[in-house]
Amino acid sequence: MGAFEPQDPGYEARVRASFARQTYMQTLGARLVRVEPGLCEIELPYRVELTQQHGYLHAGASASIADSAGGYAAYSLMPADSSVLSVEFKVNLLAPGRGERFLARARVVRAGRRVSVCELEVEAWSGERATRCLFGLQTVLCLPGIMDDVLRA
Amino acid sequence: MGAFEPQDPGYEARVRASFARQTYMQTLGARLVRVEPGLCEIELPYRVELTQQHGYLHAGASASIADSAGGYAAYSLMPADSSVLSVEFKVNLLAPGRGERFLARARVVRAGRRVSVCELEVEAWSGERATRCLFGLQTVLCLPGIMDDVLRA
Amino acid sequence: MGAFEPQDPGYEARVRASFARQTYMQTLGARLVRVEPGLCEIELPYRVELTQQHGYLHAGASASIADSAGGYAAYSLMPADSSVLSVEFKVNLLAPGRGERFLARARVVRAGRRVSVCELEVEAWSGERATRCLFGLQTVLCLPGIMDDVLRA
Amino acid sequence: MGAFEPQDPGYEARVRASFARQTYMQTLGARLVRVEPGLCEIELPYRVELTQQHGYLHAGASASIADSAGGYAAYSLMPADSSVLSVEFKVNLLAPGRGERFLARARVVRAGRRVSVCELEVEAWSGERATRCLFGLQTVLCLPGIMDDVLRA
Repeated sequence: MGAFEPQDPGYEARVRASFARQTYMQTLGARLVRVEPGLCEIELPYRVELTQQHGYLHAGASASIADSAGGYAAYSLMPADSSVLSVEFKVNLLAPGRGERFLARARVVRAGRRVSVCELEVEAWSGERATRCLFGLQTVLCLPGIMDDVLRA
Repeated sequence: MGAFEPQDPGYEARVRASFARQTYMQTLGARLVRVEPGLCEIELPYRVELTQQHGYLHAGASASIADSAGGYAAYSLMPADSSVLSVEFKVNLLAPGRGERFLARARVVRAGRRVSVCELEVEAWSGERATRCLFGLQTVLCLPGIMDDVLRA
Repeated sequence: MGAFEPQDPGYEARVRASFARQTYMQTLGARLVRVEPGLCEIELPYRVELTQQHGYLHAGASASIADSAGGYAAYSLMPADSSVLSVEFKVNLLAPGRGERFLARARVVRAGRRVSVCELEVEAWSGERATRCLFGLQTVLCLPGIMDDVLRA
Repeated sequence: MGAFEPQDPGYEARVRASFARQTYMQTLGARLVRVEPGLCEIELPYRVELTQQHGYLHAGASASIADSAGGYAAYSLMPADSSVLSVEFKVNLLAPGRGERFLARARVVRAGRRVSVCELEVEAWSGERATRCLFGLQTVLCLPGIMDDVLRA
C-alpha cells in the first residue's frame, strides 16, 4: 500500500475527463475532490432525494460513489490508452448513512497489469466529525489499448 | 430456496409502503414490480442520466436496485413490527449494463430470525432479450419491534 | 447459465490431473466427484479433525472445497495450454456444517476469455437429506499460454 | 478502528480455549500467536501438504486462518457467556501464497452488540520480508447467553 508511480503523467486529467462522462455521478450530485496515484476521493452532499426508508443515505448511493472512487483510483495507475471496468465489489455497511456529506475514498491495494484491487471506504461527515459508514473491497480490470472515450455505448 | 410462508399476511402493503419512502428509488426512476414471500423485483428504465463513462448503466445504479430488491425480499418474511437493514452485499458485474430496462430480482436463500441472506441478480432487457448483468449476495438484518416508519432520521 | 461448449475436449483429464496436484485437497480428504463443462463437484467426508470450536465443519474447510470446485469449473472451459487462479471469493455460511459428508458444487455463470465468475455452494448431507450450508461467488482468472503443470513453485 | 475496551477481562483465555477446540487449526498446523482487544493473529508454517496445483499455499488454507483470526478478533470483544459465528467473508487473493510462513491478522472495524465486522489480511513471510497475499472482510455474529463450550455438535 506504499506510494505508486503512475505510468501516465497525465493521469489526473484523464481520470477527471472520464469522471465527467459519468452522468450518473452528476445525477447523484457527486464531485471528484482528489486524485493521486492509486487514490481517489469523491464527495456527495446529503440530499433527501438520495435516501432509503429511514431518511438516511441509501446504501446503493454510498456504494455507487465508492465504486466510482475505486475504479478511478485504479485507473490513475493504468496506461493512457486503456479503459477501466469494475469486475466486482463487496461492501459492509458499518453505520447508517447519517451526515451532511459523504466522502468516498479508494486506495489501490494491488496494482496489476490486468487485475487491480482497491480498498473502499465512505465516511459520513457531520460538521467536523466523521464516521466510517461503508468499508469495502473491489476488483477492477484494465482493458489495454482501448481509449476510455472510444468505448461508447 | 423453496416456498416461504410469510409471518405477516400484510407483507406486500408493508413492503410497498417502505419502498415508497425510499426517495432514492424515485430519483433513479425505479419501480417496484413484484413482491412475493421471499422475492422482490424492481425495474429501472435506462436513462442517459444513470450512465458511467462508456454510456452503460453505472454499476452503482445496478447495485442500488439489487440492494433494495434484496432488502424487500427479506422484509416480506419479517414480522409486521420490524425494520430491515442491509449489513453487506457483494456483486459481480457479469456484462455491461446495456439495455432499455433493467430488472433486479432478489430471492431469500436463508430466512433467519435476525440474519437473512438473499441472492441478487439484475437482467438487462433489450426488446424480448435478457442478459444477466449482475449477480450478487446480500446479508440483511431484521430489527424486531421497530416499525419501519418510526425509524426516521 | 446454459450449456457450455469446452474449448479443450480433454478438459476432464486436465482438471483431474490438476486436482491431483492439490495436496491440500488430499490433506482435507476431499475427492473430485464430477467434472462437466462449466461444472465441478468435490466431496469431503466429515472428520473430527476438520472442525471448529463447536464440532461442526470449519467454515474454512467448507470454503476451501468450494474454492477448488469453482476454480475447476472455470478451468474446464479454458484452453488446454492455460492455468487458472482464484482472484477472489465471497461466501455466506447459511447453516452450521453439520453432516456426514459435504458436497461442494460450482457452476460457471460467466465464462470470459480472461475473467470467469462461478456460483459456489456446499451441501451438508446426513443420510439422504441435504442442507445448503454455504453459498458463494468467485472470480477466477485464466492465464493463457501457461500450462498448469509448468507453473510450479 | 481505535482502541477497544473488552467487556470480559478474561477475553484472552476465553479466545485461546476456543481456538484450542478448533481441531481444524491443529490439522493445518496453525498457531494462535496474538490476541488483543479487537485483534487476533494466527500463524501457519508452509507445508507441502497445504498447497494448490502450483505448489503455493492453497487460497482455502489462507482463507481458513483469516476466518478464524476474524472470528477471534471479534470474540475478544464479546461477553464471557457468548459464542461467535462467521456469517460471511470475502477475500481477495493479492499474490500467490509463496513463503515460509503465513500470518493472518484480523482487526475489528465495527464492534456491534450482535453484528461485528473484521478486516482480514494474510502476509506471506520469506525470511524478514512480508508480502500481503490476502485481504478480506468478514461479518460475524454474537450469540449472547450461549457459552462457547456448551454449543457442541
